[in-house]
Amino acid sequence: MTAFDYDLFVIGGGSGGVRSARLAAGMGKKVGIAEEFRFGGTCVIRGCVPKKLYVYASQFHEHFEDAAGFGWTVGETRFDWKALVAAKEAEITRLEGLYRKGLDNAGATILQTRAVLVGPNTVRLTATDELVTAERIVIAVGGHPTPHFDLPGHDLCITSNEAFDLAELPKSILISGGGYIAVEFANIFHGLGVETTLIYRGKQILSRFDQDMRAGLQAAMIAKGIRVICEDIITHVAEGEGGRRTVTTKAGETLVVDQVMLALGRVPNTARLGLETAGVRTNEKGAIVVDDYSRTNVPGIFALGDVTDRVQLTPVAIHEAMCFIETEFRGNPVSPDLDLIATAVFSQPEIGTVGLSEEEAAKKFDDLEVYRAEFRPMKATLSGRQEKTIMKLIVNAGDRKVVGAHILGHEAGEMAQLLGVSLKAGVTKDDFDRTMAVHPTATEELVTMYQPSYRVRSGQRV
Amino acid sequence: MTAFDYDLFVIGGGSGGVRSARLAAGMGKKVGIAEEFRFGGTCVIRGCVPKKLYVYASQFHEHFEDAAGFGWTVGETRFDWKALVAAKEAEITRLEGLYRKGLDNAGATILQTRAVLVGPNTVRLTATDELVTAERIVIAVGGHPTPHFDLPGHDLCITSNEAFDLAELPKSILISGGGYIAVEFANIFHGLGVETTLIYRGKQILSRFDQDMRAGLQAAMIAKGIRVICEDIITHVAEGEGGRRTVTTKAGETLVVDQVMLALGRVPNTARLGLETAGVRTNEKGAIVVDDYSRTNVPGIFALGDVTDRVQLTPVAIHEAMCFIETEFRGNPVSPDLDLIATAVFSQPEIGTVGLSEEEAAKKFDDLEVYRAEFRPMKATLSGRQEKTIMKLIVNAGDRKVVGAHILGHEAGEMAQLLGVSLKAGVTKDDFDRTMAVHPTATEELVTMYQPSYRVRSGQRV
Repeated sequence: MTAFDYDLFVIGGGSGGVRSARLAAGMGKKVGIAEEFRFGGTCVIRGCVPKKLYVYASQFHEHFEDAAGFGWTVGETRFDWKALVAAKEAEITRLEGLYRKGLDNAGATILQTRAVLVGPNTVRLTATDELVTAERIVIAVGGHPTPHFDLPGHDLCITSNEAFDLAELPKSILISGGGYIAVEFANIFHGLGVETTLIYRGKQILSRFDQDMRAGLQAAMIAKGIRVICEDIITHVAEGEGGRRTVTTKAGETLVVDQVMLALGRVPNTARLGLETAGVRTNEKGAIVVDDYSRTNVPGIFALGDVTDRVQLTPVAIHEAMCFIETEFRGNPVSPDLDLIATAVFSQPEIGTVGLSEEEAAKKFDDLEVYRAEFRPMKATLSGRQEKTIMKLIVNAGDRKVVGAHILGHEAGEMAQLLGVSLKAGVTKDDFDRTMAVHPTATEELVTMYQPSYRVRSGQRV
Repeated sequence: MTAFDYDLFVIGGGSGGVRSARLAAGMGKKVGIAEEFRFGGTCVIRGCVPKKLYVYASQFHEHFEDAAGFGWTVGETRFDWKALVAAKEAEITRLEGLYRKGLDNAGATILQTRAVLVGPNTVRLTATDELVTAERIVIAVGGHPTPHFDLPGHDLCITSNEAFDLAELPKSILISGGGYIAVEFANIFHGLGVETTLIYRGKQILSRFDQDMRAGLQAAMIAKGIRVICEDIITHVAEGEGGRRTVTTKAGETLVVDQVMLALGRVPNTARLGLETAGVRTNEKGAIVVDDYSRTNVPGIFALGDVTDRVQLTPVAIHEAMCFIETEFRGNPVSPDLDLIATAVFSQPEIGTVGLSEEEAAKKFDDLEVYRAEFRPMKATLSGRQEKTIMKLIVNAGDRKVVGAHILGHEAGEMAQLLGVSLKAGVTKDDFDRTMAVHPTATEELVTMYQPSYRVRSGQRV
């Protein structure tokens, strides 16, 4: 039927690659998938999954503290970092096994090797130096944390890749960055008892998020004891006594910490992949350029997920993979829908968000209604914990559509998922008003804000 | 302006009464509100609020157990019931104060007395034996747990009214009933270390809920050590040794427990209220009969909330109050919208639900698609806890509308609130499909169930 070894060859065993390979193989296509490290990709091995497990681990000390207000006395507690690392390792190994099993059951050929392009339809497997051909090739090799080579002492720093598997839990850590990865790790390490400092060049963490979310989370982090240094950057890292790190900042501060973690963004894994040989075009960031159907400039070569630097999220990579399969193997051209993607920051408290921030919405719409509630969660009334939940709906006054929804609080990620359904369906504020409250919940605030907190007309709060 | 003492007189300081009084007073109306016990009503004083606080209290032992899987060692823990009762008491007293303050600020006259009707526009305040007149009277006196007078030994039993304030935490308890109150208290007491048995006449707890929710929760309760006796009832309760209770069941079983709690439904507080004197009609359950605008058969007399036995929920009483104000004082007739009310059962795990159960939907629609996911929550992978989350969407195949959504799992109440917005807005399964997942969350399951688990055609599962 075909002159190629494979109908589809996938380079990279992460979320996008595995989904493409599994679906195509399940349709009876001859599929090969090459992975040089571990199946599961960033998400399973050193991203979403271990991150959320560590978030859970870091929440227990708050449970222990909160219990007192409810009548509980808790004896001395101890945390064993190595036990957590081992438990995480067992779990991601289990998930890795499920990924492999899914591929295997679908009939895909699993190749434990790096694979590089040598032509439009040809790949070299570096483990065996074998050449294989395929009618279609999917590049889904993901990305990695920016190593920040121009920082003197960058080699003394860790990134999120190493953070999960440190031999010892540091007593203190300095995290550089203001994005969600920096923020999540700052909360994790703090929760596990590490003296934590976050340093960020911007005025406030989480640029591009709604202002209330940024301010609210930053205040919550500071209140619980995380030091947040804004408008400053690390200029030098040196080895200090006892294996510690001495850090100098641009503003002239010197910090001595056990670990320095760089969370300064991620870059696509496009080096030494044979892209030039095959003639695949990349952009100035090194990301593979694709069209609406994940096609590169070279016919037969496609790219999915983080390596394309569209939206670096697991569900997006999976969605791109499903669109690719639909388009290429089911004769039903579908391009990924990247509009209104709900996301979460698994900080403590969490942020859940979908749609436009107030700032973005103010640029886009002449007349906004902003509904905003800030309140102490019910559990905090007895625990005595000082924390606030913030909920916010941004409504286009013109057609009453909810164009943004933002929550800072417990389980905000779950809430964002479901608000995502509503916003995707184009619900209006009237739909919220018509909905009966569920009492006592936090989200009932979202359906009982009958009057706008304020309006924004022509970009000005009135 | 008016020949009456008050424009509006409200009998009962619960959710519906306080909202009516506060809103009317805020509009400049002359308002009196009488409460014989404590402001806040069932919800604040002996319902939703203390219940949820006790749910929080009863969850900590699971946090302590779960911690081990994440590397934590927790010393000996102890629970002090009296400390919880005192903390609860302080919180509901605070809330009661807020209710009073809200009324006071709005300009309503607060009367600490029982009030009974003596005519269409006249009320007698029993504390002072004073007669007051009002143009409109709202009866919002709520309900109380069925005392089950025909059960021999019923006077040896407690109800939810007493459960919050027991002098001692019982070592064992038998709870009679299969509704949400029985189920919630069974989970609370079990979580606080009480040997708990639930006895229910039906085949399975929570009749009228979706079958998967009923079966899933019952299995979870049994798995964690709650004894659930179905298809049996208590026939006799006697005083046993050491202040214990000896219970005989219809099936012939004898149980000896510290406390017996009856949770067999609630009845309206319509006795000795002067309803006959004023000519206000009640139904066979003793509930005040009202029309779509909360009007009784007597002009000028209205009734709201549990005393009308429409839907016994706090948000419904508040909604009825707001509709009453809109109709009577703002010239904008609005009748309460009681369609698609999302609700939660604060069991452990919780149930969150909105719309039709599969069983109800199967009677209403010819062709259903049922999407069902059952999975272990992520946290359980490390905690080792044996529990399942169940999520279910019931879709009318005809127009793709989601007609029911049901969740058993952590924070299902919050989820039900937001699913409530979606269902109220009439979203379709396609809207769910179009929504990008938020990873890792539990609710992402709801947007990634692309194929029906099964269909129900003409009432038959196929």
